[in-house]
Amino acid sequence: MAKLVLIRHGQSEWNLSNQFTGWVDVDLSEKGVEQAKNAGKLIKEAGIEFDYAFTSVLTRAIKTLHYALEESDQLWIPEVKTWRLNERHYGALQGKNKAKAAEKWGDEQVHIWRRSYDVLPPLLDADAEGSAANDRRYANLDPRMIPGGENLKVTLERVIPFWEDEIAPKLLDGKNVIIAAHGNSLRALSKYIENISDEDIMNLEMATGEPVVYDFNDKLEVQNKTKLD
Amino acid sequence: MAKLVLIRHGQSEWNLSNQFTGWVDVDLSEKGVEQAKNAGKLIKEAGIEFDYAFTSVLTRAIKTLHYALEESDQLWIPEVKTWRLNERHYGALQGKNKAKAAEKWGDEQVHIWRRSYDVLPPLLDADAEGSAANDRRYANLDPRMIPGGENLKVTLERVIPFWEDEIAPKLLDGKNVIIAAHGNSLRALSKYIENISDEDIMNLEMATGEPVVYDFNDKLEVQNKTKLD
Repeated sequence: MAKLVLIRHGQSEWNLSNQFTGWVDVDLSEKGVEQAKNAGKLIKEAGIEFDYAFTSVLTRAIKTLHYALEESDQLWIPEVKTWRLNERHYGALQGKNKAKAAEKWGDEQVHIWRRSYDVLPPLLDADAEGSAANDRRYANLDPRMIPGGENLKVTLERVIPFWEDEIAPKLLDGKNVIIAAHGNSLRALSKYIENISDEDIMNLEMATGEPVVYDFNDKLEVQNKTKLD
Repeated sequence: MAKLVLIRHGQSEWNLSNQFTGWVDVDLSEKGVEQAKNAGKLIKEAGIEFDYAFTSVLTRAIKTLHYALEESDQLWIPEVKTWRLNERHYGALQGKNKAKAAEKWGDEQVHIWRRSYDVLPPLLDADAEGSAANDRRYANLDPRMIPGGENLKVTLERVIPFWEDEIAPKLLDGKNVIIAAHGNSLRALSKYIENISDEDIMNLEMATGEPVVYDFNDKLEVQNKTKLD
């Protein structure tokens, strides 16, 4: 039996200011730091010992992982960061205030962008300010892989190859894994792991900093799902 | 031209209390945290961008790396932790107060243990309390590789295979590398890089939290060595 723990990063500065974030690299808020530390305490109380850690290349997820591992006395475990666990790219909406976007495009349109499975947001040009194409952390990526905007479907399609290549083999080998990532990359993972329909997945909410624990059998079937709180 | 930056971890709680530390996993002191953050600021001012990060499996070095990378806006770079960059194992002296050790064994003997290149400290039994043999982080190591105590010579012999296999190829490939580690694992690396004699190496002191920068040519010869301060 292997355990997988998912943690959505703690509150970020832009969660606080109600802005679309996506791939913009904003920091945790003070509350977000406390949430991450608390996640680590819950993991320690539950006695879960990890063999491998995975996170995105965005600071708020990396720091959440580090706080959680430090609080549970396992900061030393191997850690891999990948763009494939990044938050959904929110296209030209990134940096925009959510309320102002609703004024500009209408509540219904913004709701569709936020909650539909396969509608893309307005795209960000590769040469626009803030494009990931100009960010050193994506310099080794085939430019065709750098999104101008993603829906959950596209997010899932780039998360799952990493799951299949790097994470699933370790769980099948009986190793315990922690993933610290984002609302939508974790939603994509949960959809795949639990076989949730395109309609139902948008209703799945993960609380920030609240660890979700899956127990798998040796065929990678979910035996149990619990939240630590 | 590739750059290598070495950082000795910031002040630890046992540096403060004057205890032999070695492989015991003590945390940074508050001053140590500040030193690590300051190292990151110096790296940012110098404009150094890393491709890879390496550290030990001891919390004080890992946290020093994380603070330095975060302050220089590059927490997202790939990071590998290895026992081969651990501090010198101080054997049965670990946890002992340095002044009390001098009272018990004499100043001269303790000086020899601290400053000779090839004299081993009193060894710690594999089944003694605090032995690395009982620590989960070394569970995948051949038990014959877990030391009961090391001198600088033995430390160098386990650091250099990692340098040759994992670090040197990246520098030869023109990549910039940061290593956050310990007084003696970094002394071993410096000895090898600069071809320092067994006699002279014990006089090399690295200040905590002060980044040392090497510039290499494409034959991995040192072109320049500077300290950031």
